Amino acid sequence: MAEEVILLDCWCSMYGMRARIALAEKGVKYEYKEEDLNNKSPLLLEMNPIHKKVPVLIHNGKSICESLVIVQYIDEVWKGNGPLIPSDPYEKAQAWFWSDYMGNTVHEYAVKIWATKGEEQEQAVKDYLGGLKLIEGVLGDKPYFGGENFGFLDISLIGFYSWFLAYETFGKFSVEKECPKLILWVKRCLERDSVSKTLPDSEKVCEFAYEFGVE
Amino acid sequence: MAEEVILLDCWCSMYGMRARIALAEKGVKYEYKEEDLNNKSPLLLEMNPIHKKVPVLIHNGKSICESLVIVQYIDEVWKGNGPLIPSDPYEKAQAWFWSDYMGNTVHEYAVKIWATKGEEQEQAVKDYLGGLKLIEGVLGDKPYFGGENFGFLDISLIGFYSWFLAYETFGKFSVEKECPKLILWVKRCLERDSVSKTLPDSEKVCEFAYEFGVE
Repeated sequence: MAEEVILLDCWCSMYGMRARIALAEKGVKYEYKEEDLNNKSPLLLEMNPIHKKVPVLIHNGKSICESLVIVQYIDEVWKGNGPLIPSDPYEKAQAWFWSDYMGNTVHEYAVKIWATKGEEQEQAVKDYLGGLKLIEGVLGDKPYFGGENFGFLDISLIGFYSWFLAYETFGKFSVEKECPKLILWVKRCLERDSVSKTLPDSEKVCEFAYEFGVE
Repeated sequence: MAEEVILLDCWCSMYGMRARIALAEKGVKYEYKEEDLNNKSPLLLEMNPIHKKVPVLIHNGKSICESLVIVQYIDEVWKGNGPLIPSDPYEKAQAWFWSDYMGNTVHEYAVKIWATKGEEQEQAVKDYLGGLKLIEGVLGDKPYFGGENFGFLDISLIGFYSWFLAYETFGKFSVEKECPKLILWVKRCLERDSVSKTLPDSEKVCEFAYEFGVE
């Protein structure tokens, strides 16, 4: 049976990037459908009626929602190019934990950099950099988060890089200055086609962030 | 090597109950350490420095945090009594999705029932029951969420039952009246030792909720 794989996504969603990178790593052919988040498609509302959010993976008519769940699904359904998720239970637990930490806690600090000013923004910058430094500590001196190979936690984290410039511009700070090893890891990831072809231009994200800023 | 398994938990945490039920299902012997959430132990702060929350599973000195990640870890490390997590990628994705929905979205409605009054509380009751009805729809006519066998999604959801009486008392409604099939599923789960020995007395939870209410 011919497979039908569709991804409902938005170009600047770091959660969507997780799905796109995983699909690219596995060499899965799929139809990409860009969503206008101000005017969501009937297909998105049908396929993710609970949260109405991207990304949604539709595989032969069945929808899979929530970015980490999608990456897990992709890893299990398409076995090509080896597993993305660590097989060791403890490493797997760590990868889920830090993926969740970046996608929720640290992302909330980032949104505050975008949405606030003055002292509140200064605190958000401190919190955000604190979160990134913790994550940099998890990387340590390894080339990738899982060790020698690019995997689940790298996929979960790398999309957030495309918003660094926007946050840096809003909050007047430099991630590279504070977390140089993290930026070396970013550069290593960007050498992979799956990442470089997925991540949008940081300048474009920055323009988007200004346009849709909450000021 | 003798295994050391410790669970840092709080008796009325529905997230902690997920870990306790999974450990019971697998027949894992462990040391239970009750945490006073108003005066967290140095061990909790050391083992979950990021979120400082229960439950935390400590296995031979290594900590695993976040309840669903803990259940996954338990399922993978202790193979006895069969797997709790579905092996089918789509069923697994669904189980994660609904576990997350109950633990985050629906739980937030529940907290509002507890924390608000008047119209805001009425809306929270509607939202909460709407969430439970969606979950009841996922159950359908199956005995358990995964089908014939008690598994991951049952474990993720059943602990929330121990708070139903508290929310019902605050919000003046009956889950049984609105979601009769869900309550039949609860009764089925309570026939299992792993559940009946884990879930606290609903009256005791209700007293606790009144004592620590935000009024």
